[in-house]
Amino acid sequence: MNEDLVDRLRLLRTAGIGPVTFRQLLRRFGTAAAAIEAVPDLARRGGGKAPRLFERGEAEREIARVEKLGARYLTLGQGLYPRLLAALEDAPPLLIAKGNLNLLDRTAIAIVGARNASAAACRFARGLAHDLGQQDLVVVSGLARGVDSAAHDGALESGTIGVIAGGIDVFYPPENEARQRAMYERGLVLAEMPPGTEPRARHFPYRNRIIAGVSAGTIVVEAAPRSGSLITARLAAEAGRDVMAVPGSPLDPRAQGCNQLIRDGATLIQNAEDVVEELGPVGRVRSSVIPYRPEPELVNGDDNAVDLVEELLGPSPVPVDEVIRLSGASSGAVQMALLELDLAGRLDRHAGGKVSLRPA
Amino acid sequence: MNEDLVDRLRLLRTAGIGPVTFRQLLRRFGTAAAAIEAVPDLARRGGGKAPRLFERGEAEREIARVEKLGARYLTLGQGLYPRLLAALEDAPPLLIAKGNLNLLDRTAIAIVGARNASAAACRFARGLAHDLGQQDLVVVSGLARGVDSAAHDGALESGTIGVIAGGIDVFYPPENEARQRAMYERGLVLAEMPPGTEPRARHFPYRNRIIAGVSAGTIVVEAAPRSGSLITARLAAEAGRDVMAVPGSPLDPRAQGCNQLIRDGATLIQNAEDVVEELGPVGRVRSSVIPYRPEPELVNGDDNAVDLVEELLGPSPVPVDEVIRLSGASSGAVQMALLELDLAGRLDRHAGGKVSLRPA
Repeated sequence: MNEDLVDRLRLLRTAGIGPVTFRQLLRRFGTAAAAIEAVPDLARRGGGKAPRLFERGEAEREIARVEKLGARYLTLGQGLYPRLLAALEDAPPLLIAKGNLNLLDRTAIAIVGARNASAAACRFARGLAHDLGQQDLVVVSGLARGVDSAAHDGALESGTIGVIAGGIDVFYPPENEARQRAMYERGLVLAEMPPGTEPRARHFPYRNRIIAGVSAGTIVVEAAPRSGSLITARLAAEAGRDVMAVPGSPLDPRAQGCNQLIRDGATLIQNAEDVVEELGPVGRVRSSVIPYRPEPELVNGDDNAVDLVEELLGPSPVPVDEVIRLSGASSGAVQMALLELDLAGRLDRHAGGKVSLRPA
Repeated sequence: MNEDLVDRLRLLRTAGIGPVTFRQLLRRFGTAAAAIEAVPDLARRGGGKAPRLFERGEAEREIARVEKLGARYLTLGQGLYPRLLAALEDAPPLLIAKGNLNLLDRTAIAIVGARNASAAACRFARGLAHDLGQQDLVVVSGLARGVDSAAHDGALESGTIGVIAGGIDVFYPPENEARQRAMYERGLVLAEMPPGTEPRARHFPYRNRIIAGVSAGTIVVEAAPRSGSLITARLAAEAGRDVMAVPGSPLDPRAQGCNQLIRDGATLIQNAEDVVEELGPVGRVRSSVIPYRPEPELVNGDDNAVDLVEELLGPSPVPVDEVIRLSGASSGAVQMALLELDLAGRLDRHAGGKVSLRPA
């Protein structure tokens, strides 16, 4: 049994420890084992009681189950873990993967869109995915109905990755079971949640960040305003990736999301050549480059750091950078205080690096 | 009889004197009468013989005919002549107008597109023109079949200007006679060519520059690649005006021109609100602002200027600016030499301020 994996899993599956907190604990304590030992004391300093840690036995059972499913873990920052995904501040600390892991070595491009897309849009997505496959690109999508399914189908021969919101062994929607099984064999399926997890609404935005994160760019095909596909596009843009959209007639309500994306700066694409042109030579090699991000060293602040930071926070999310600036303390000390409040169950972390105090 | 108008018409209708040459003659000699006197000597200096000037009697007959048609001339730089159009270097020195001249006082927006557009595109153009009319914008188009006709129809109540390639009294295509007559009454029709002129293929790009030139922005609705509508869009962009396009599905071949325009930088628009947003508050007042362009004073060069400039020219068009730079002479002297070559029938002027020597 891989002891480090057991420790990482114990930490990650502990309630209240999300990807950002996990990453900061590893940064501060070097190993998951050391972090586990430190958690109770940190939570106490944050003014709460220690979270109940995921038991060793539970972790071992999950690992055994993943192995039995023919799947394996990918560990952030190690081995085959997708390097573009690792660049996200909230990258999943562990992913569960089943299928052809070699696909992780090629540049990936996401194709996403409406579940209730028109037949024409699905046909377009399938053809586009096929043509991008001919350009040696791996097509990523979410194994949903509609555009996602069409994109996977078009790229099944050349290489496709499906990122699912539930467990690696859960088929959702049920009619996609055959497609997902085919991708275990000839493509690759990735899941963040433990095996057996039925996907819930809140899981889908997490799934979407992985789709955007593993891909050099995201293409949206027919999306309604305020749909999940547009969330994926926004996450891709925030991660500095290319966002592309397929236009449609203003008379077609299903084209509004994509047309608005283009108005907001996404590149209009009509075919695979347009996509390759947009990605450019940089895009083709980008998967081997991790953007540089300085990682502040977390330091033990003086005893007043938690009180100071707590006083600056309220129920409205504010950027961590602003908290640091207002506190007058060092970045490392503030991050440490936030970590302590977090582990004490007194902090909420939000998109865009914002934090708020959890209402009592 | 307006003597200055007679002189301008004589100069303009003289073979070989185009809008740019006309403008430079006026710049150099102050009045059309003085320019007419100077032409023979200039042509001789340019190494050719003087062009046969349009006769005074011919000019008087044209003026009488225009009056009888219930139309009138608009003179570049004077009175009601559209101020945005005057900003074009090759603005028509005279326009013939029939209809409601008050429309020239409001901000205009062009809607152009394919003659064989889909029914959906025509419906969209008609609705858009109507909605833009409600925003107090005047809709300009080319009185062609398809999108043009739909745009005029949608804005007939609120105000629309048709720019035609032939004479003010010529109906082309013939089935648009009723529409053009309605616009004499309730809209405005503009023509550059003399009455009775049947439009020929070469007239349409000239017509297109007027459509783009009078308008604060140009909207393209369904245009084939390499179509006249795209020429209008290019001319609008060159004149520093907003270019907008209505997208369509990549699966629809008729959408390719507009989608490519958007890829090239045109703003995607879906409705009148998008257009108003694009024009912005600046767009709404722009019609009263003439961009500043310093006008070099043309000077009589020494006798060698024509030889010098002629030596720098060949059959391939080169920018006038480059000729000036290479010559080492003053801008005014080079322009004068070009004017002399031009009047001698030895120069061709091209789009984008380029010139070439006419093959003997």
